[in-house]
Amino acid sequence: MSEISKVEAARPRGFADRDAADIAAAEAMMTKIREVYALYGFEPVETPFVEYTQALGKFLPDQDRPNEGVFSFQDDDEQWLSLRYDLTAPLARYVAEHYERLPKPYRSYRAGWVFRNEKPGPGRFRQFMQFDADTVGASSPAADAEICMMAADCLEALGIPRGSYVVKVNNRKVLDGVMEAIGLGGEENAGRRLTVLRAIDKTDKLGMKGVSELLKDGRWDGGEPGKGDFTRGAGLSEQQAERIRWYVGGANPETRHLQEGYGFDASFQPGTDVSSKALFQISNMDRIERLCAIAPHNQLLREGLDELRIIARLIDAGGYDEQRIGIDPSVVRGLEYYTGPVFEAELTFPIDDEHGRPVRFGSVGGGGRYDGLVARFRPDPVPATGFSIGVSRLLSALKAINAPIVAQAQKPGPVVVLAMDKDRMADYQKLVKTLRDANIAAEIYLGEGKMNAQLKYADKRGSLCAVIQGSNEREAAGGPQVVIRDLALGAELAKANKDRADYLEMRAKAQVAVPEAEMVERVQAILARAGAPLL
Amino acid sequence: MSEISKVEAARPRGFADRDAADIAAAEAMMTKIREVYALYGFEPVETPFVEYTQALGKFLPDQDRPNEGVFSFQDDDEQWLSLRYDLTAPLARYVAEHYERLPKPYRSYRAGWVFRNEKPGPGRFRQFMQFDADTVGASSPAADAEICMMAADCLEALGIPRGSYVVKVNNRKVLDGVMEAIGLGGEENAGRRLTVLRAIDKTDKLGMKGVSELLKDGRWDGGEPGKGDFTRGAGLSEQQAERIRWYVGGANPETRHLQEGYGFDASFQPGTDVSSKALFQISNMDRIERLCAIAPHNQLLREGLDELRIIARLIDAGGYDEQRIGIDPSVVRGLEYYTGPVFEAELTFPIDDEHGRPVRFGSVGGGGRYDGLVARFRPDPVPATGFSIGVSRLLSALKAINAPIVAQAQKPGPVVVLAMDKDRMADYQKLVKTLRDANIAAEIYLGEGKMNAQLKYADKRGSLCAVIQGSNEREAAGGPQVVIRDLALGAELAKANKDRADYLEMRAKAQVAVPEAEMVERVQAILARAGAPLL
Repeated sequence: MSEISKVEAARPRGFADRDAADIAAAEAMMTKIREVYALYGFEPVETPFVEYTQALGKFLPDQDRPNEGVFSFQDDDEQWLSLRYDLTAPLARYVAEHYERLPKPYRSYRAGWVFRNEKPGPGRFRQFMQFDADTVGASSPAADAEICMMAADCLEALGIPRGSYVVKVNNRKVLDGVMEAIGLGGEENAGRRLTVLRAIDKTDKLGMKGVSELLKDGRWDGGEPGKGDFTRGAGLSEQQAERIRWYVGGANPETRHLQEGYGFDASFQPGTDVSSKALFQISNMDRIERLCAIAPHNQLLREGLDELRIIARLIDAGGYDEQRIGIDPSVVRGLEYYTGPVFEAELTFPIDDEHGRPVRFGSVGGGGRYDGLVARFRPDPVPATGFSIGVSRLLSALKAINAPIVAQAQKPGPVVVLAMDKDRMADYQKLVKTLRDANIAAEIYLGEGKMNAQLKYADKRGSLCAVIQGSNEREAAGGPQVVIRDLALGAELAKANKDRADYLEMRAKAQVAVPEAEMVERVQAILARAGAPLL
Repeated sequence: MSEISKVEAARPRGFADRDAADIAAAEAMMTKIREVYALYGFEPVETPFVEYTQALGKFLPDQDRPNEGVFSFQDDDEQWLSLRYDLTAPLARYVAEHYERLPKPYRSYRAGWVFRNEKPGPGRFRQFMQFDADTVGASSPAADAEICMMAADCLEALGIPRGSYVVKVNNRKVLDGVMEAIGLGGEENAGRRLTVLRAIDKTDKLGMKGVSELLKDGRWDGGEPGKGDFTRGAGLSEQQAERIRWYVGGANPETRHLQEGYGFDASFQPGTDVSSKALFQISNMDRIERLCAIAPHNQLLREGLDELRIIARLIDAGGYDEQRIGIDPSVVRGLEYYTGPVFEAELTFPIDDEHGRPVRFGSVGGGGRYDGLVARFRPDPVPATGFSIGVSRLLSALKAINAPIVAQAQKPGPVVVLAMDKDRMADYQKLVKTLRDANIAAEIYLGEGKMNAQLKYADKRGSLCAVIQGSNEREAAGGPQVVIRDLALGAELAKANKDRADYLEMRAKAQVAVPEAEMVERVQAILARAGAPLL
């Protein structure tokens, strides 16, 4: 052959392939999610991967250049196009474009790949899948409540046991009200508010001491002065910081004596969940009343709490207690576009972190109300609320607890009919056809390997049995036969002690010659024994 | 509200949204295809949407600029990335990258969106879906035969009746051999060969007369001199052209007297299929023998025909006659990378063209052997063959024949529990929960509309029934009741003559008050009557 320089077989960084096992597990999971969403009256909708950058709201501030975080390219008419960054902005475009013909409220779901032009890392991809559900055109907190219940139902339907998850609910109006109450209202404090929100968001990870540092002067990442990087704090006074700590702990100064073991005391350790530590011991309604006491006269706080009250009442009527769907003041949710209730679905069971230390699994999805997003396109306001699942993160959670829905997703490989004699391919074609007609996945070995290589191939495919017909079988005295080889039993046999009492019996079972007419029945018996689902 | 300039809610040209009905139909179709592919031992695999432009082989010839037909952008390390153009080039990259750990032969399938930066038009999108199956690492024509059988099985499983489709098979070696035989071999004739292949490819559309013109001096698109655009011909002599006509007609000079009614005679009309007109009357083996007579001493032709013989023998053993899988010399398949057998799945039933004239539906997929594609990445040759279905094209075919698999794909809308009294949302939440617990898709109406608007909403969702509980029902003497409204029957009633003997009976059935405890049973009865599948 001539010396041609070869192209490297490589993927761009942050883009992954998915093999059969991955796809089967993800599909099993998503089929179940779809079932739950359909039960709630949500219907599927899909938008394309490419949108006008402008429709996604992804231009850099004050510039005609797309945000670097999105993959963008110019169309032949010079307009900027981008790969979608999430599924919410395209949904807003979809609803605005098809507004008149859609039923309203419009309840829809969609699973889809999204793209971020960011630095990839372990478990961080530039293409990943989200599974969203949204209700557009409903301003009622009942729509938010329903989405929280649906998220909880979803997790249970997937096999996450009650007590191992919590859907946390908060309200951006509550957060904003508290900010106002401690004197951080107004445009001029936007930066400090963001710092405070970021600190609150880290409660689970850092504990109250760390949060306190971030609220005041700042914090060393290593936990003590000079260790790691320094993160600047929000510069709150001790009094302001204390009110935030009360807020996060769901407490108020007057009831402090009741708060033994509460999040904000010294016993609270980093890595422990505030909710599980303290809030879980009181009902959602009581949590709301306590939050009210933080700043009883703040209008925004009261409005937010009123919405949470409606949500609390509905989830209670739906039969969900605060261990499953819990009001939690520490939920922030980063995205700027949230305007009301916000949710976060967290898994509370531990997994090992990169250092082998147990940590809570954490968030697998979240969402909230975004009343302003569709209004970007339309003259009239269109309220909306939604929830997004991180598909690969939830999938790894299900793998971590060995949930049957994913553990049993992959089917065994096909029955392999060995190609013993290349001149007899037509005969093998008939055998394989007979198996397929009986709804058994089957194939003729189509490579160049000899018998051993063919059996190895069958093993590699995860096949449960192989069908063999050489000249001996074909010309058997009583008519054509096939040898059926039980590959699972064969593997066991290879490892077994030959002195075992049942060795010969096993060997006889592992490979047996039968008349062609009995092939299907024998193969079915082997598949059934292995508990293999038929197609 | 302030006067903010709104963003236009629009999609870029050639990118489509998919609504619930579209998605349900496509999913039903693809689930069936997956089942057939699995039965043949193929397993799913997925590659990302973005690849190195180089890996796709999509740079412009002799330039460092990507082909304009692909969407491309530069990564932060300056390397060019592209959205995938088809699913074959990414598969070749995948197999080359993971070669050592894959079972060989490697049989896989994948459905996925692909992107073409081309001018969109009616039914022509810049994002569309393909469904591919490929066997990599098998040089045997048995692999090609199997893919043809799988394609035929697929079409039948989807509800396309036998006789309404044909999987046509040809071989690039046969085409190349014929070119050599008429003196068009060699690098210097590459351009003319392409013109001849394009002419052959148009046999179905133009008939023999049109093909003849394209083979010789050229053809006016309008069918007569001066009408429409002129397409230059290949400049063949009448003698050369006649041999091509014999070839396309599956004929040879010596047996010409046998070919009454054959494609190449004057009676052959544009729009008629050569195969159905003539070839269909003879067996695959006879077709091959006739083709051999075109140039019995040409090595390439003989090699190609030997491969077709193996294929013909295997499909015969599989029980497929030439009406289902037929050798057809007019199949060309445009893509340059094919190296051996090529296939085209055609639907033979008529649909109306844009002028209302009946035309054959035509191709819904095709493929062939591409032994060179994986070798771009690897030092050793890796044979491969595959088949690709155009998902939206096949879907429109199934819609055209009203195939049950897509006609019955969409489920009815959810049961809608009306929100009669906003203070009673918790009650409605309990009702809806009861329905969902019985696996009935249900929702509370979450908008602002009054009763009529709520019922209209339920109609728009395609709901079969609504559940109503006002104060009368809630405070009924014997305990709380609900009104169950049968929306299908209600619609009938609205159109019915009030003098009908059964009018009152119908009306009583269309809306009935029952105790809360009977709600589920009554709703189930309405769903069952409508033949609605439960979730």
